Amino acid sequence: MKDASKKRPTIRDVAKVADVSVATVSRFLNGKTQKMSDQTAERIRVAIKKMNYVPNSAAREMARNSSRIIAVLAANIADYFSVEIYRGISSRVEEAGYISVLLNSGSSLTHERQLLHSINQHGFDGLVFQPLTSDTEQVAGELTRDFPVVVVDRDLPRSTWPKVVTDNYEAARSTTEYFADQGFQRVVVLTSTIELASTRIQRFQGISQAASTIETIEIDENNFQPDAVYGALKKALSRPGKCLLFALKERWLLEFLPRLMKEHVIDEARTAVTGFADTALIGSICPYAKVVSQNPFLMGQRAGEILLQMLKGKKNIPEESVIKAQFKH
Amino acid sequence: MKDASKKRPTIRDVAKVADVSVATVSRFLNGKTQKMSDQTAERIRVAIKKMNYVPNSAAREMARNSSRIIAVLAANIADYFSVEIYRGISSRVEEAGYISVLLNSGSSLTHERQLLHSINQHGFDGLVFQPLTSDTEQVAGELTRDFPVVVVDRDLPRSTWPKVVTDNYEAARSTTEYFADQGFQRVVVLTSTIELASTRIQRFQGISQAASTIETIEIDENNFQPDAVYGALKKALSRPGKCLLFALKERWLLEFLPRLMKEHVIDEARTAVTGFADTALIGSICPYAKVVSQNPFLMGQRAGEILLQMLKGKKNIPEESVIKAQFKH
Repeated sequence: MKDASKKRPTIRDVAKVADVSVATVSRFLNGKTQKMSDQTAERIRVAIKKMNYVPNSAAREMARNSSRIIAVLAANIADYFSVEIYRGISSRVEEAGYISVLLNSGSSLTHERQLLHSINQHGFDGLVFQPLTSDTEQVAGELTRDFPVVVVDRDLPRSTWPKVVTDNYEAARSTTEYFADQGFQRVVVLTSTIELASTRIQRFQGISQAASTIETIEIDENNFQPDAVYGALKKALSRPGKCLLFALKERWLLEFLPRLMKEHVIDEARTAVTGFADTALIGSICPYAKVVSQNPFLMGQRAGEILLQMLKGKKNIPEESVIKAQFKH
Repeated sequence: MKDASKKRPTIRDVAKVADVSVATVSRFLNGKTQKMSDQTAERIRVAIKKMNYVPNSAAREMARNSSRIIAVLAANIADYFSVEIYRGISSRVEEAGYISVLLNSGSSLTHERQLLHSINQHGFDGLVFQPLTSDTEQVAGELTRDFPVVVVDRDLPRSTWPKVVTDNYEAARSTTEYFADQGFQRVVVLTSTIELASTRIQRFQGISQAASTIETIEIDENNFQPDAVYGALKKALSRPGKCLLFALKERWLLEFLPRLMKEHVIDEARTAVTGFADTALIGSICPYAKVVSQNPFLMGQRAGEILLQMLKGKKNIPEESVIKAQFKH
């Protein structure tokens, strides 16, 4: 194994050893050898082998103006949902010769902005982006370079990037209706601040359509107070009569269900439990929960497909692709 | 928002509009303006603004021979452990002006090899790598370029890359001893194929040191048969007397504990439960489990620090950094 401090051979070194110009070596590396003598090509080949030269792909970038890397900016890689979207994208773009790399906003708007800035700078071929909010200005201010972008799981009003979304309104409405028909007509909605994200607004509207009464517990992700939220949740769920707990994100079920179960705040007869969730873990924590799955792997695959079409310069890119959620009951 | 198919302006376009050579624009972009007239610099500035030109960072790469991106290749991003390592690395390298991007071997050796090949090609500044196995040849065959690499959570024999590891032997030994002192002297070890990974070998040796008897259930990750494994596990755990279930990876506890609990195969009086695990979920599934946490965020931070030192060309890089695991009891 070579000493890690030894500098790697550059195109200049190869040119020197082969006794040609850098431009000539560059032409060789990019396959433009028609005007080159066999002797010259052979000298270059030998020099490359001798020095164990691996072309810095930046040289290729300059020639091709393409790095063949797709960036995927996830809202939070601690969420199974984000990880599955990335796996779906990878499965598609890697077939076409790209590699996809994952970056993490970590639920921080500041960090999201910094990463968008870096992604804009770095010359990635394309971006699949799962925004934290539906704030288009936050995004458009940073993504000034013209390169293909696909948005996942959010509307970004007044933007023209294609998007891949869930049928949020209808999935929430029909799920709520199912439980209402079983007598669970009062709904306790557990969610992050609704107005910040199109998906939450649509889900809330769907629930409102089918529920008799709604009590909403909104969590400020920038100032998350677990005990205060648990207190409000416990109070809402302890009121007399049957009710449905509807969490708009899996993270909130994982956060609060274990304690609600342990402290017997909820029970199968009085409380129905649902939410948008994709792992098998919810069923382990609360066996009578019936969740709505968004199928993030498929959403990622669709986003990857759309991005590839954009990279090929195709024109008729669908503005919105809807992947229907599945209610498991 | 511009039409996504419009090509972004290149350095050549700017040179044309400013009526200078590409080399001159390049010097301007890299701050080498000492020999340039004010007029020329101003023409270039105006041209850049007019065309909304964003320097392709590949140009910077050529000038600087550095892309300022750290690649992190995880064994499996579905594991909380891998995600936390990445978050730890990011927290360190981003302070120093790098961005770190995550790639996913997805527990597949073939995929790991392909990604190592791509990473080698692409000119990333550095790599933090969480190998699937301790097979050094698999890795060394692909990482032929000289650039800083730090290995996390595995030994790679006969390699010289610095590594960040857990005190696997001692953590496993002392944990087993704790339970043995409480009468749980028979141990059922639940693990992926032991011989493939240094960490598993070390943990198994530690357990062997403190246990009276051991029964081992080894899972072939390339041919995972959940029902067959569950059957063997149930048989081992149902034998008379007390025993300790020791899982060498969190994934196996998440996979099997819910069903073992549900079917009453285990109970607090007869079965102690432990394993290497980092999330709070295990406690939700089995309240009497007492796990060993590796502190992956800290491991990632240490790996990031070491990588930064290597990038600065420092010489005395520690070959091995040990982050001690914590037994929560």
